[in-house]
Amino acid sequence: MSIIVQKFGGTSVGTTDRMKRMVSHVIKEREKGHDVIVVVSAMNKTTDTLVRLAGELSAKPCKREMDMLLSTGEQVTISLLTMALQQRGLESVSLTGRQAGIQTNGVFGNAKITSINTDRIKSELSKGRIVVVAGFQGITDIGEVTTLGRGGSDTTAAALAAALKADRCDIYTDVDGVYTSDPRIVPQVAKIDTLSYDEMLRLAAMGAGVLHPRAIKHAKEHLVPLVVCSSMDEGLGTVISEGTQRKARILGIAFQKDISVIKIHDCRGGESLILYDLDSHHIETEIIKFNDTLILIVKDKDFREVKRIVGQYNQAYSSVEEKESLSKISVIGRINSHEGKENVTNIFHDCHIAKELIWESPAGISALVDRSDVEKAARILHMHFGLDSVESMRAVL
Amino acid sequence: MSIIVQKFGGTSVGTTDRMKRMVSHVIKEREKGHDVIVVVSAMNKTTDTLVRLAGELSAKPCKREMDMLLSTGEQVTISLLTMALQQRGLESVSLTGRQAGIQTNGVFGNAKITSINTDRIKSELSKGRIVVVAGFQGITDIGEVTTLGRGGSDTTAAALAAALKADRCDIYTDVDGVYTSDPRIVPQVAKIDTLSYDEMLRLAAMGAGVLHPRAIKHAKEHLVPLVVCSSMDEGLGTVISEGTQRKARILGIAFQKDISVIKIHDCRGGESLILYDLDSHHIETEIIKFNDTLILIVKDKDFREVKRIVGQYNQAYSSVEEKESLSKISVIGRINSHEGKENVTNIFHDCHIAKELIWESPAGISALVDRSDVEKAARILHMHFGLDSVESMRAVL
Repeated sequence: MSIIVQKFGGTSVGTTDRMKRMVSHVIKEREKGHDVIVVVSAMNKTTDTLVRLAGELSAKPCKREMDMLLSTGEQVTISLLTMALQQRGLESVSLTGRQAGIQTNGVFGNAKITSINTDRIKSELSKGRIVVVAGFQGITDIGEVTTLGRGGSDTTAAALAAALKADRCDIYTDVDGVYTSDPRIVPQVAKIDTLSYDEMLRLAAMGAGVLHPRAIKHAKEHLVPLVVCSSMDEGLGTVISEGTQRKARILGIAFQKDISVIKIHDCRGGESLILYDLDSHHIETEIIKFNDTLILIVKDKDFREVKRIVGQYNQAYSSVEEKESLSKISVIGRINSHEGKENVTNIFHDCHIAKELIWESPAGISALVDRSDVEKAARILHMHFGLDSVESMRAVL
Repeated sequence: MSIIVQKFGGTSVGTTDRMKRMVSHVIKEREKGHDVIVVVSAMNKTTDTLVRLAGELSAKPCKREMDMLLSTGEQVTISLLTMALQQRGLESVSLTGRQAGIQTNGVFGNAKITSINTDRIKSELSKGRIVVVAGFQGITDIGEVTTLGRGGSDTTAAALAAALKADRCDIYTDVDGVYTSDPRIVPQVAKIDTLSYDEMLRLAAMGAGVLHPRAIKHAKEHLVPLVVCSSMDEGLGTVISEGTQRKARILGIAFQKDISVIKIHDCRGGESLILYDLDSHHIETEIIKFNDTLILIVKDKDFREVKRIVGQYNQAYSSVEEKESLSKISVIGRINSHEGKENVTNIFHDCHIAKELIWESPAGISALVDRSDVEKAARILHMHFGLDSVESMRAVL
């Protein structure tokens, strides 16, 4: 039997009317004879409301309790969407993360799926039912409720698709595919029709949104094609699969606005301790080394915490230099690192964009710029690397 | 170690400000050295919102999905209240019905607690934590989420208190105790200071609200004192325990407004089938037999369904008579049934209240009256049976 996993994001299920409309996507696949599993996010305003309530009680609520709280959002959606399916005469059943057998580690707020027991899902499918699964959530081996952090519902969908050897995992969202940059900032973006898993990982790692790296890794592991498509129109979207290795060297321009940097000079010996400590606090950090200088690229929200941690090891380095309110911009793709850095440096120079730092990574070339310059920088790089519109893109291929 | 179970109703936890205020009730018991388990309801507007959303999708949503939906309400409260406790420096942890080990049968929407595995709660208490448990919900042996129906959080609290051999179970609500009638309708009500379990069961069985019969039965089974008290003031409330057998013959006047009656004439043979069928549909029915006439007293909301079921057995009786839009009024207490019925009949006659039916039950004397007469009838019976004000009550003792 062929299995399709569909993931409906928070906007797609934001109201009961939208839920009713999403039912047609399920019916379409059922009519083709597929078994369907739908993974849902919380209705898009629910999470905000819950976070606000928690904020009224505590400035820094306990992560375990936040997971207990936030996981209710998806549970509301699964039951409501199941009612919408049943109202259309479709046999269906909702399952929480626990009921769907989604086991995670115990990192509250950012848990990783460790295994999936698909018995219950398979049993429901064998009864001819559509299975609606709560995304974003799982359960530890001692029965604690966890959430998967950013992009969690995509991860649930891709991991389920992998575990069930699904034929495809369709990610329904409010954009109709993966673009060469953020269309709100760069009007000349082009939609990318096909990507390999590794290309998509490059884009995702650089904060290009749409899909979380964890989701892509789950799909890649079992070669399940991922399709990013719009819940509003019938366009083809972007297909991410192993077969489609693109020749284009440059995939897109990604940026993250709220970035800070901490430079630790003459860091000898303390490095591994600092990195271990950051890791045990589950802080996402990009790490660059220039000779004896250790550079940490962190999100603004983690800046204080990272400073505190680094401060504890002040015996192990000579001085610390820091700068807040920067943005990171990245040219993503397979690119000659020396040439790429020189290109970006020249372009920035010509356009009077001051850069704080430029470096290479497996995903491409990145630079730190003033926050006020990042949108302009994105548009300029998008043009200079030949990504403007489909036509200019074809020219590069 | 002494254990106190506290139950906070939907109004008591209706806003985050109210939650903060409820923390003081927990602190009070902790300062006396007790272990505390708090059982909570959903925030009072949450359930309405969820029911409205379901109504937008389906006129008659599947009960399993309704339980999946509604059980999120208590899960939101446990996490938020736990944050409020932690913010005051109190070690605490929230547990869903499942995590608290509350096993039920599989009757969605009206499940019964079948057993409680207290291991997790005891382990949390042994770590010095306050345990906040989601009321109203449980889990079946195959892991389905259930809700306990009306008064479900009281039932959870009393059942937990019984299973943990608690010293007391305090039911915090928006009234400060059990009254001789509904103060919104009968201004001369008196608060009842002490009641035996059986007396409270009589009051509850007659729809006197405040506590569900199931909750009282759980407490009675293990002789856990129940205290009904106000979340707003420090009054003593009403204590329900085995020791306090009251001599008063009449406890109060209870009424249920939305009642219909179905009289099945010359019902021979079909009776047990009809009753079995009603029971298997989980419809609450009061059954009276007068010779060959079977009388079913049902809530308005169940009227159509009961008519449909009765109609299926039309071979087994001669005719059916029905009347909607009635109310039931009951004089509750240990009362001579013949004398009691005569008394009520005379009072109604003198006051020009037409009665449809009068009968006795283990809880007292009940009558069906026109809905437009029920409030007047309640006030008159309250006075005639000497329940008006504490003074008039003492005269009866």
